Amino acid sequence: MISNINQIGILTGGGDCPGLNAVIRAIAKTAIMGYGLEVIGFIDGFKGLVENRYIQLDLRKVSGISHTGGTVLGTSNRDNPFKYFTVSEGNVQHSDESDRAISNMHHLGLDGLIVIGGDGSLNIANQFQEKGVNVVGVPKTIDNDLSGTDVTFGFNTAVNTASEALDRLHTTAESHHRVMVLEVMGRYTGWIALHAGISGGADVILIPEIPYKIDEIIKKISERYRQGKNFSIIVVAEGALPEHGEIVIRNLVSTSHDPIRLGGIGNKVAEDIGERLKNIEIRVTVLGHLQRGGSPIPYDRILSTRYGVAAVEAFMDGKFGTMVSLQGREITTVPINDAIKDIRKVEPDSALVKAARSVGVNFGD
Amino acid sequence: MISNINQIGILTGGGDCPGLNAVIRAIAKTAIMGYGLEVIGFIDGFKGLVENRYIQLDLRKVSGISHTGGTVLGTSNRDNPFKYFTVSEGNVQHSDESDRAISNMHHLGLDGLIVIGGDGSLNIANQFQEKGVNVVGVPKTIDNDLSGTDVTFGFNTAVNTASEALDRLHTTAESHHRVMVLEVMGRYTGWIALHAGISGGADVILIPEIPYKIDEIIKKISERYRQGKNFSIIVVAEGALPEHGEIVIRNLVSTSHDPIRLGGIGNKVAEDIGERLKNIEIRVTVLGHLQRGGSPIPYDRILSTRYGVAAVEAFMDGKFGTMVSLQGREITTVPINDAIKDIRKVEPDSALVKAARSVGVNFGD
Amino acid sequence: MISNINQIGILTGGGDCPGLNAVIRAIAKTAIMGYGLEVIGFIDGFKGLVENRYIQLDLRKVSGISHTGGTVLGTSNRDNPFKYFTVSEGNVQHSDESDRAISNMHHLGLDGLIVIGGDGSLNIANQFQEKGVNVVGVPKTIDNDLSGTDVTFGFNTAVNTASEALDRLHTTAESHHRVMVLEVMGRYTGWIALHAGISGGADVILIPEIPYKIDEIIKKISERYRQGKNFSIIVVAEGALPEHGEIVIRNLVSTSHDPIRLGGIGNKVAEDIGERLKNIEIRVTVLGHLQRGGSPIPYDRILSTRYGVAAVEAFMDGKFGTMVSLQGREITTVPINDAIKDIRKVEPDSALVKAARSVGVNFGD
Amino acid sequence: MISNINQIGILTGGGDCPGLNAVIRAIAKTAIMGYGLEVIGFIDGFKGLVENRYIQLDLRKVSGISHTGGTVLGTSNRDNPFKYFTVSEGNVQHSDESDRAISNMHHLGLDGLIVIGGDGSLNIANQFQEKGVNVVGVPKTIDNDLSGTDVTFGFNTAVNTASEALDRLHTTAESHHRVMVLEVMGRYTGWIALHAGISGGADVILIPEIPYKIDEIIKKISERYRQGKNFSIIVVAEGALPEHGEIVIRNLVSTSHDPIRLGGIGNKVAEDIGERLKNIEIRVTVLGHLQRGGSPIPYDRILSTRYGVAAVEAFMDGKFGTMVSLQGREITTVPINDAIKDIRKVEPDSALVKAARSVGVNFGD
Repeated sequence: MISNINQIGILTGGGDCPGLNAVIRAIAKTAIMGYGLEVIGFIDGFKGLVENRYIQLDLRKVSGISHTGGTVLGTSNRDNPFKYFTVSEGNVQHSDESDRAISNMHHLGLDGLIVIGGDGSLNIANQFQEKGVNVVGVPKTIDNDLSGTDVTFGFNTAVNTASEALDRLHTTAESHHRVMVLEVMGRYTGWIALHAGISGGADVILIPEIPYKIDEIIKKISERYRQGKNFSIIVVAEGALPEHGEIVIRNLVSTSHDPIRLGGIGNKVAEDIGERLKNIEIRVTVLGHLQRGGSPIPYDRILSTRYGVAAVEAFMDGKFGTMVSLQGREITTVPINDAIKDIRKVEPDSALVKAARSVGVNFGD
Repeated sequence: MISNINQIGILTGGGDCPGLNAVIRAIAKTAIMGYGLEVIGFIDGFKGLVENRYIQLDLRKVSGISHTGGTVLGTSNRDNPFKYFTVSEGNVQHSDESDRAISNMHHLGLDGLIVIGGDGSLNIANQFQEKGVNVVGVPKTIDNDLSGTDVTFGFNTAVNTASEALDRLHTTAESHHRVMVLEVMGRYTGWIALHAGISGGADVILIPEIPYKIDEIIKKISERYRQGKNFSIIVVAEGALPEHGEIVIRNLVSTSHDPIRLGGIGNKVAEDIGERLKNIEIRVTVLGHLQRGGSPIPYDRILSTRYGVAAVEAFMDGKFGTMVSLQGREITTVPINDAIKDIRKVEPDSALVKAARSVGVNFGD
Repeated sequence: MISNINQIGILTGGGDCPGLNAVIRAIAKTAIMGYGLEVIGFIDGFKGLVENRYIQLDLRKVSGISHTGGTVLGTSNRDNPFKYFTVSEGNVQHSDESDRAISNMHHLGLDGLIVIGGDGSLNIANQFQEKGVNVVGVPKTIDNDLSGTDVTFGFNTAVNTASEALDRLHTTAESHHRVMVLEVMGRYTGWIALHAGISGGADVILIPEIPYKIDEIIKKISERYRQGKNFSIIVVAEGALPEHGEIVIRNLVSTSHDPIRLGGIGNKVAEDIGERLKNIEIRVTVLGHLQRGGSPIPYDRILSTRYGVAAVEAFMDGKFGTMVSLQGREITTVPINDAIKDIRKVEPDSALVKAARSVGVNFGD
Repeated sequence: MISNINQIGILTGGGDCPGLNAVIRAIAKTAIMGYGLEVIGFIDGFKGLVENRYIQLDLRKVSGISHTGGTVLGTSNRDNPFKYFTVSEGNVQHSDESDRAISNMHHLGLDGLIVIGGDGSLNIANQFQEKGVNVVGVPKTIDNDLSGTDVTFGFNTAVNTASEALDRLHTTAESHHRVMVLEVMGRYTGWIALHAGISGGADVILIPEIPYKIDEIIKKISERYRQGKNFSIIVVAEGALPEHGEIVIRNLVSTSHDPIRLGGIGNKVAEDIGERLKNIEIRVTVLGHLQRGGSPIPYDRILSTRYGVAAVEAFMDGKFGTMVSLQGREITTVPINDAIKDIRKVEPDSALVKAARSVGVNFGD
């Protein structure tokens, strides 16, 4: 344990994710009660770090927040101190404000920074580490696609939200003999679609890792009709793509993450089915930000708590430049560098995909 | 009580609605156990009546279904026996198949029909009544806009679904400083939007009964910013309309009910705000059919049970041509004719709207 | 409207009830935004009034609380200012501290008091009214047994909790062929048991208003076995009583309200069944305070909001000594005196009880 | 793969557990669709095997059941074919009926048996294996205490139920300044208590693995009072024990599993606190069988599906005498013999217990 640590800063960066408050609480409680530290929370992610906006976190401020959604510290999406976005006289400018951020930490007397964020935020954290700031990371992505850890917090809550939606759609699909399409998050990977689809009894699951053929989907729906099952449930990750369809569909991809516009690939799949199966009614639902909000389920509250505790311990042990990580049942640390190199994709021939196929799920291939 | 009744038919018509199975169960149990009747359930609404597809309902078939969504009898949306839709050699045809339906009932030995449906289905029921069929109606509309009854079953479950969505959006809106737009059902009336909006703490509620001005919405959002609340929650009924905007927006209206296409007015509101408040991020969620599915909440299970019991009693009392209705705390009957004449709209100066205004809700007016 | 009102006090008294925070928020928002009043919230009910402990409620303090359980003001159960409980040198003493309470209100410059509470708290409110304090009441009882209003807030949330418990017990009862007994709140009335029982598909519902015979329950369970249904679900209100059993069972009654001891009548019913049906396994669950906690369902959030708004309006209209009340779909006021005279009991021959019987529910009679 | 397998039997044994139906569905779908097998489901666990009661499972019978609680095959608790319980002329007898069971399987033409059960059922399965029956096991225990696998299905759903109860108790504890005691399942191990306690923000968690001292609990509650937190939440596993208290308390232990009697250790803890802190109100809730019922959460539906698929594959691969097991992220097999040797206990100095301590949880030690 490093003995001369007295004060740490923390911030939450990037998209919202259920469990952020449980991480913040665990960090603050462990740091204050376990090590007698002072804890500074920067407001609105890296933006607050640059603008020197912060609050001091005491036990009272983090009491009773672990079951709440959102982040008490606020977050921001696009504020990279190394390429800081400002608008001056109508012109957009980018400048390197990292020294200003470091100077702020210096004046506050911080011994380092715990960054709770996805690959974008952890990459920034790493750059600060390279400039001499003591940094520990906590992995955060609703998509569960970080290669450096088995599971990220928030993911199972998002799966829960999507699975509940499928339960609702199931009864109404069956009563109305409809095809129901549910578009869920997952721009680059299909983890949410895969898990929610298995849980919610989907007939078809479309994910970015397995390009789909519309004919295969039609075949599956038709086969179900022949078996007397005149309804079907289709789960589509927002980044799913038809085979040979990459260029055509570019503009439709990545929708629920994007401002305003709704339902790219989900709508496309529905339209393509509708063109071929003219007598069948089809409905689309796009969950969008519902998947990022709400109270974290117990699994995520516990994982978040463990991550928060482990982050402080890693910091006190001087394991700077690392990120806490779940490996099997244990929390350990991995270098941030390694952790953010790749995203973890669904393997098309993995046991989980095979298990889904075994219970009758079609992947459009 | 009429003594020579031995057998009744029932069917569910129109859009899905949580509580249908609880009504079916209550009708069957009351008819079989209370009056020793036989009960025939037609499959897929009026379509099954025309095509003579049915099952006999016994106690076992309706056991354990009151908490389930959907309808065990199936339903169909567009099958009016008086204007029956068929496709022959590629040509769409409409024919009057009501005599065929009546003949089917005759051959089955039915003493009459209980129709669970919205204004469309009840209107058909009424036409059968005029042709001499003994008919009793049970009001069903997720939108709660039937003038003949205080509350329709399914409505409170839909409000619940929408309110839960608002709870989720709230935390993420606050953390990200965003404007969140939630489009809910309500093509002609704003009941779901109004109730869910009050329950979910919406800042702005847009309903068909109160044409909105985009400027008023901008004013409200800006005012909240000045108070340090840099996020806002907007609930939009799918039939909401801007003042002076009727013609322009026609094509956008009535979206979640319609095939495939998603998010008309919700997207429009978001785009119009986005144009004026360029620095604010906006996200849209369209709940769509999630509002029609899932397990009915206890309020709806109880109301459905009461409606089902009362429908059989009305039938046994010879109150043909009536619909069961909740008036205050009592279930009574009203002539179907009267009940479906008008839809019940939200009064802009009603106590409920005023109460919403009192806690700070803006209606865009 | 009375023009010289500037400042009001509010407090929450008696047992916890989902929706209290939504009432507090609605009162504060309406009073501050609608009438420019100042609002003082006394801490821990009448205890805070006597001890002069309070906070000033502003818009920020009541923001975002309507979906939360509990009361931000705290409450206390046994602190009647007119018979104030103190312990001095080991001796329990009761003294009249009402003048001290009035003096506190005087010094704060309060124009009156809004009391959110059950019959106990409203009775105290009435006594203050008689001593010249301007008082308006908001009815609160989880049991829904107040005669002066159709529905009290919190009740439907408690029904929800109990009904969810029945859903869980149902599947396990069926798989294990067991008799499951669920004891719910309701010391004097059976409203929660009746509503939850109908919603959750109970086979037997035992309520204080209908004394039960154990033989009838045995008959029902045995009849179900003969029909091939080898499980049964029994809902028992904590105040349920066997016929001719009043004296014997006195000590067992009123359990979940009482300190520590659990499961009086639920256990007794289970034991009595177990003695007669030796081969059947029986399990008891006592929900206890789970029914008082948690987030209010939308129905209760809306009702609470309406009550809060109406209470301020009644106050501003000078309707002192009244309580806000739901009558059909309208909120109105009734004299507190009338409202707390009687408790509203379940009528054994009411339509709701009859409807329950029609779908096969046995009341042990 | 073994080529001459045509027909398998399955059964569910022991206590109810959310996810059983998802396992049954996955086994049947994989066996029928993947390998063309016939699948026989024995009714009511080993009892049906002895009495030759069964149904043939086809795709239709297992369709749409993965989200439901309970088991469509029924189960029984005490029916060991090797020591079969019968009552003859009032006398209880035990006889070895295993040969009768084997003969039944023989006549049905079964190639083996998949047993879904806890250590009791798996032990029986193993005995059949030793008598030459091809057996594969699927581990089932709500308590998560099987040494041969990382996680058992149903556990996370039980944690969810307990955690939701804590969320409800939290608000009411805080409003009323009470100590709330929640007794959860866990006769020999504290897994549910530990996970639910961390998730639900418990102040004290009492588990069988860490004997508690009542003085330490009092100290924790008092310390919270001094910090201005005048409420506390205590989670107690039903098998928790005071230090030096083993003999005295024997009769109180193991309650929610046992017939009828409720709330042993939970009540004792509450009474002991009540004796020492006379001014504090205490309430006890015993969740009991609520933890075994209800719809499995997505995590358990997915795990159950994977187990079911893997069990059929293990069978087809001839891995008889093994049990499927989750190790990290992979499903593998372990010899049943090894898997049921020990129960997996909470290590008092494990990372999870330490993490709980870091966020302020007291274990009464």
